Amino acid sequence: MERVDSLIHARWVIPVEPEGAVLENFGVAIEAGRIVDLAPSAELNSRYTSGQVRNLDQHALIPGLINSHTHAAMTLLRGLADDLPLMTWLTEHIWPAEQRWVGEEFVRAGSTLAIGEMLRGGVTCFNDMYFFPEQTAQAAKDAGMRAVIGMIVINVPSAYASGPQEYLHKGLEFHDKYKDDPLIRPIFSPHAPYTVDEQWLTQVRTYSDELQLPIHMHVHETADEISGSLDQHGKRPLQRLDEMGLVSPHLLAIHATQLEEAEIERLAEAGAHVVHCPESNLKLASGFCPSAALDEAGVNVALGTDSAASNNDLDMIGEMRTAALLGKAVAANAAAIPASRVLRMATLNGAQALGIDDLVGSIEPGKQADLAAINLNEIELSPIYNPLSHLVYATNRQHVSDVWVAGKNLVREGRLSTVDKTQAIKQAEYWRSQIAAENSKSV
Amino acid sequence: MERVDSLIHARWVIPVEPEGAVLENFGVAIEAGRIVDLAPSAELNSRYTSGQVRNLDQHALIPGLINSHTHAAMTLLRGLADDLPLMTWLTEHIWPAEQRWVGEEFVRAGSTLAIGEMLRGGVTCFNDMYFFPEQTAQAAKDAGMRAVIGMIVINVPSAYASGPQEYLHKGLEFHDKYKDDPLIRPIFSPHAPYTVDEQWLTQVRTYSDELQLPIHMHVHETADEISGSLDQHGKRPLQRLDEMGLVSPHLLAIHATQLEEAEIERLAEAGAHVVHCPESNLKLASGFCPSAALDEAGVNVALGTDSAASNNDLDMIGEMRTAALLGKAVAANAAAIPASRVLRMATLNGAQALGIDDLVGSIEPGKQADLAAINLNEIELSPIYNPLSHLVYATNRQHVSDVWVAGKNLVREGRLSTVDKTQAIKQAEYWRSQIAAENSKSV
Repeated sequence: MERVDSLIHARWVIPVEPEGAVLENFGVAIEAGRIVDLAPSAELNSRYTSGQVRNLDQHALIPGLINSHTHAAMTLLRGLADDLPLMTWLTEHIWPAEQRWVGEEFVRAGSTLAIGEMLRGGVTCFNDMYFFPEQTAQAAKDAGMRAVIGMIVINVPSAYASGPQEYLHKGLEFHDKYKDDPLIRPIFSPHAPYTVDEQWLTQVRTYSDELQLPIHMHVHETADEISGSLDQHGKRPLQRLDEMGLVSPHLLAIHATQLEEAEIERLAEAGAHVVHCPESNLKLASGFCPSAALDEAGVNVALGTDSAASNNDLDMIGEMRTAALLGKAVAANAAAIPASRVLRMATLNGAQALGIDDLVGSIEPGKQADLAAINLNEIELSPIYNPLSHLVYATNRQHVSDVWVAGKNLVREGRLSTVDKTQAIKQAEYWRSQIAAENSKSV
Repeated sequence: MERVDSLIHARWVIPVEPEGAVLENFGVAIEAGRIVDLAPSAELNSRYTSGQVRNLDQHALIPGLINSHTHAAMTLLRGLADDLPLMTWLTEHIWPAEQRWVGEEFVRAGSTLAIGEMLRGGVTCFNDMYFFPEQTAQAAKDAGMRAVIGMIVINVPSAYASGPQEYLHKGLEFHDKYKDDPLIRPIFSPHAPYTVDEQWLTQVRTYSDELQLPIHMHVHETADEISGSLDQHGKRPLQRLDEMGLVSPHLLAIHATQLEEAEIERLAEAGAHVVHCPESNLKLASGFCPSAALDEAGVNVALGTDSAASNNDLDMIGEMRTAALLGKAVAANAAAIPASRVLRMATLNGAQALGIDDLVGSIEPGKQADLAAINLNEIELSPIYNPLSHLVYATNRQHVSDVWVAGKNLVREGRLSTVDKTQAIKQAEYWRSQIAAENSKSV
């Protein structure tokens, strides 16, 4: 008998790899934060002993969810201004609030709030793009959560940096500090083709080649972005990026609601990734990402919530459901984007896009023990024909009972163990009281 | 000081009428199941005393949600067969399961399960179309829930009736038995223009005129329905219904994903109602209901979940969110279907469509005390700029803490008081074990 740090047994284990597998009465053995075995519970019990044994006999155990596109700190702006036309929302509410309030404290408080929300809902890793990335990284480390943190570059000055050169400089300093951190992975995050000048995009590509790091960028979010690019450059944004050498396996194209057939083929051929954010696209009326067509063409499609200011939550279980439902309607095919595929988008595909699939994204021996357990013993989840399709079509994030990152139990029976919920809510209300007073004055 | 049965104070009361109002630190006085006063809590306390006083100081109090289209008993088929093309799903799974299993016991067990789920999620009234309507009515009465129950008519024989004549006959018997029930309201429910022959649709119209009762029917659900009607009758279904005199203020047209501009105008002019079921339409890839265009044209649009077999839940908070998000994207306008309008669709518009807006649908003195309280003190709901938009864009049904129907507290701090949850889950699993065994044999 081998001694391990912990054993988790579950009624169902859904490992994601192989896709669609549902293993009944299985469990995992965890040692030093890593999964060392996945086997039927009876076998596991005959091989290992542990002082930490969990029996989740009404639960499905899945890989922790990966939110592949967020702006975590903006959670402080959740619901600040809803039901407005996109440009009114941005120019009269979101941008002025950011100009006025964004700083180290805002980013730390907003990121902590976001991290608490995400962990509680089964998310174990997020990919963030925002100012003061070190604050978000520190908030994640404090909570024991995994995060991929963007080195943001944008033409517009902010409290964080005066322009593209300083953004890049600060980003590279951030990279040097965190590049060997077990939980934090820095990547490049130029904002969008229309907000970062070509010389800086090219610079980002050079650094990305050198450091072999992904590039996380908003691409083809709205029809206006396309027409603006056609007016200014005589070509569509994706073509400009391609000419700069940016359409490659390093690219995470966020949103991609405006795609022609040849562009889908080009993304597939280049091995680029798309991060689909269906709820944000719907709420801002940005358009419909052809998620099933991308998936069929062989493009790796991951999922993200975008910020809580345009969603208004960081709920990846809800996002899976919206992606599966909307994907069928957009493809006019009720068999498109099945549950097993959308769960893969929210886990392993995200890990692949972010270049961390050696570490996370599926329940496989050798990977980090980033896991979520969902309690299916509820009236609204009865009866259970198929636990995998239930996860997507019937479950809410409140059914998540436990979450582990690198083997640490960060949510236990619904309670956050590393984020002080009361304090996070109090901090959020403090910021709201300041921001709301100013917002009502300016409008 | 007047003595009343109960007083409920809330941090926010959202009465729905007038639309968009959010009343802070208000409360309601309830006597004999009816709202007798709505006023600031301080005033209420100076006017009334009661042995039953609730102080919901972190909650929003709203009218109970109205699910305007369900097949409650089909909750036993939740997740039986997902991610399949529509006709495979129907002809190889749903219809065979119904043919084999539907009877009084199936309908009673399935309806009880659905009622438990709906009450737990803040739904106080549902509009049902299914076989053995008396079983559904009795399940609702047992739970103390309000229900509008369809007198179903369909060409296809079932265990319930041999054909249209017997369906109608049994329906009218049902009507006679329940027409004066305080919680149950019978209405007509011919299945669809393509499944009920013209002579019976005309008969339903005659009875509806005589009894002044609504007619609840699937109309223009899919593109196939339109092309089938054009092939068979040389005209679109809505035109056929109009020629039979069925397009009137009595009509609830369910789904309506296929509408031409002139049809939207005709529905508005006739005072007919549309019940929008966005999640079912997405999941079955049926098409996109032009909800914002209908609303702008003056058509009364209500909301429904459809059955749990094509959704896969009976979650009206989720349905509001999907309707608001999808409505914006379909209208290509981020200001379309705002939160206040979608909450109205899920409450007062439903009551109007069902002809029960004298009784329910808003928090107004004189109406029945059908209410739901939502606890907004959660990390995933922080901060709170606007509790009304939070209800739609951030809340999950698990945030519902309390539900009252006719003044009775049917959910108290998250617990069902009249539905035995453990028994409902057990019954659902019993049916699943039977149905799944047969389904796997037949496929």
